[in-house]
Amino acid sequence: MIADSFSTPTLLVDQQKVLRNIERMVKKARQHDLVLRPHCKTHQSHEVANWLRDFGIREITVSSVQMARYFAEDQWEDITIAFPVNIREMKRIDQLAQTTQLNLVIENTAALEVLQHQLSHPVNVFLKVDTGYQRTGAELSEEAKIARIVDLIKKSSKLHFKGILGHAGHSYKAKSLLEIESVHQSSLDRLQAFKALLSNAFENVFVSTGDTPTCSKMQYFPGVDEIRPGNFVFYDLAQWGIGSCDLPDMALVMSCPVVAKHASRNEIVVYGGGVHFSKDRATLPDGTTYYGMVNEFDGHEFIPLGTENYVRSLSQEHGIVKVSDAIFEKTEIGEMLHISPIHSCMTADIMKRYYTLSGQLIQMMPI
Amino acid sequence: MIADSFSTPTLLVDQQKVLRNIERMVKKARQHDLVLRPHCKTHQSHEVANWLRDFGIREITVSSVQMARYFAEDQWEDITIAFPVNIREMKRIDQLAQTTQLNLVIENTAALEVLQHQLSHPVNVFLKVDTGYQRTGAELSEEAKIARIVDLIKKSSKLHFKGILGHAGHSYKAKSLLEIESVHQSSLDRLQAFKALLSNAFENVFVSTGDTPTCSKMQYFPGVDEIRPGNFVFYDLAQWGIGSCDLPDMALVMSCPVVAKHASRNEIVVYGGGVHFSKDRATLPDGTTYYGMVNEFDGHEFIPLGTENYVRSLSQEHGIVKVSDAIFEKTEIGEMLHISPIHSCMTADIMKRYYTLSGQLIQMMPI
Repeated sequence: MIADSFSTPTLLVDQQKVLRNIERMVKKARQHDLVLRPHCKTHQSHEVANWLRDFGIREITVSSVQMARYFAEDQWEDITIAFPVNIREMKRIDQLAQTTQLNLVIENTAALEVLQHQLSHPVNVFLKVDTGYQRTGAELSEEAKIARIVDLIKKSSKLHFKGILGHAGHSYKAKSLLEIESVHQSSLDRLQAFKALLSNAFENVFVSTGDTPTCSKMQYFPGVDEIRPGNFVFYDLAQWGIGSCDLPDMALVMSCPVVAKHASRNEIVVYGGGVHFSKDRATLPDGTTYYGMVNEFDGHEFIPLGTENYVRSLSQEHGIVKVSDAIFEKTEIGEMLHISPIHSCMTADIMKRYYTLSGQLIQMMPI
Repeated sequence: MIADSFSTPTLLVDQQKVLRNIERMVKKARQHDLVLRPHCKTHQSHEVANWLRDFGIREITVSSVQMARYFAEDQWEDITIAFPVNIREMKRIDQLAQTTQLNLVIENTAALEVLQHQLSHPVNVFLKVDTGYQRTGAELSEEAKIARIVDLIKKSSKLHFKGILGHAGHSYKAKSLLEIESVHQSSLDRLQAFKALLSNAFENVFVSTGDTPTCSKMQYFPGVDEIRPGNFVFYDLAQWGIGSCDLPDMALVMSCPVVAKHASRNEIVVYGGGVHFSKDRATLPDGTTYYGMVNEFDGHEFIPLGTENYVRSLSQEHGIVKVSDAIFEKTEIGEMLHISPIHSCMTADIMKRYYTLSGQLIQMMPI
């Protein structure tokens, strides 16, 4: 097994699981006549983006100008930067716009004015709308602000209005299908209200939305033109806790050397801490905070062992793993223990590289 | 100001504050006749280690073999790896032991046996003792195990017994001086009990301990020979919450571009999220969870603005910052907002580099 060739915490990806996850989302998008524009902040990798390309994906989403540039270097030609325009990066944005169809997200007039004055190449703009997450985006009640934004876009020679972009990030707080559905429905309602409002000003209002929980589980997307889930390629324990995926869908594990065992507490200490997993946490059904779940390798794939075998705490380099009697007995110091992370996006980001089960190194965007 | 020259989230270090923090700890160690062997996992940098060297420090602590190698490359010749020996890295350990005085930490016989069989160069070993943190280390009640460990070390030609090593990491859960003191006292008691036990087997039992809260605030270290605090060079909001430092002692800030403002919520959105700060969090006095504190630059240094101006949430790239009316009014889109992190070790680790206020790039250990 590939993990046996490593001596320090190593992030592994099961390519077959990723391909299954992608195939499922591609089918779903097709079924609902939606553009699938996956968010690449999860994998941050040319290689995984190519797996998406093999399914016919041609449009992607990223979360920074740097990430847009990284994917543009690998011939991605239609990129949405799903983050409010950072006017300090105007030069880089303009450079990118020269060769790439850039779709930018705006939510205030300050950024629009800078774009209009400093861009020399045309870009598409989405109005970021707040569909209830309260992170960023215009609210329906901000009529004067929206009117000024519309006015600036209409007058601009370089900004082409594309539509509205929402992100129902509050779905990440859901704990059941019913709660995902409630977020989804209210988010759709707000998108439609915004679309109606903006249809007075623009002929076409393209509607882009989509987070992994709603895209994974919902079966209706009325009025939506495009979805942008990212995490679904890998899934993770946070998504499992929300109900977006099943345990076997999770495609990442961190293999960690076992360095100590404490029989009095049924605890295994691994080399693998916050600098490897990140400090994201989740809650077990009984209310216990946890930081990862133990897997066994069946010779073919990793099998998550359920809530009895979990990471109880992480410090900078240590992971403290609570396990069943059976796992405690059979795990020896010096072996690798395989642990599913809570949040695959953050774990991949912090590790900066991962390996497939056949040993291929997957490089990520350089720092 | 240096931050003005950046366009993306950038970690800054105030060298003067670091030097003051180092000087205070050096004086304290001298006053109590303690060896100060700082933990370098916080800064992970040759440059900052040289600032320590300028104060006469010659011995350091690290948390991984990789980190030991990184500092050995810069002529550090006496290094403690304060992490249970990872027997999968035996070759690298042996290579390092050839040129460096390595002090290893053991807490089980499995690792000792591998060390004895596979090392070709001598090393010092510390017995890791659990002083109440329950992360790792031998417990006093494990008499048979301790006897076997003693026996193996005594018989070994390559392992030189150095002493006992504790880490009162539970001091990080303290919320007052009184709680730090309680952890400190119980930790000292256990170290003394271990020392008494091992003094039957070994002539000299050197006692090494020390986390930033107890080393910063306690005024008595009976029976202790060496302290190993790490975080104190930078401090952070977690340490402030514990009571280890004052706000002006904190030496790191992340400068983040402002990308949006939401007047209805007095919230500023910055480019700066979990991939920059890490996801460590702390609790404000009123129970609110928070992820950072806003600073103002007074032309000379950063001034933390207190609990009214804090990061309320972090997603992957976004930081949502709650601020007072005054800060909201004067902060404009496109400016840099300066934010103290919760946990400087994790933030530095995730950023991989930082800059001094005079613009010097501080490189960290490469990934």
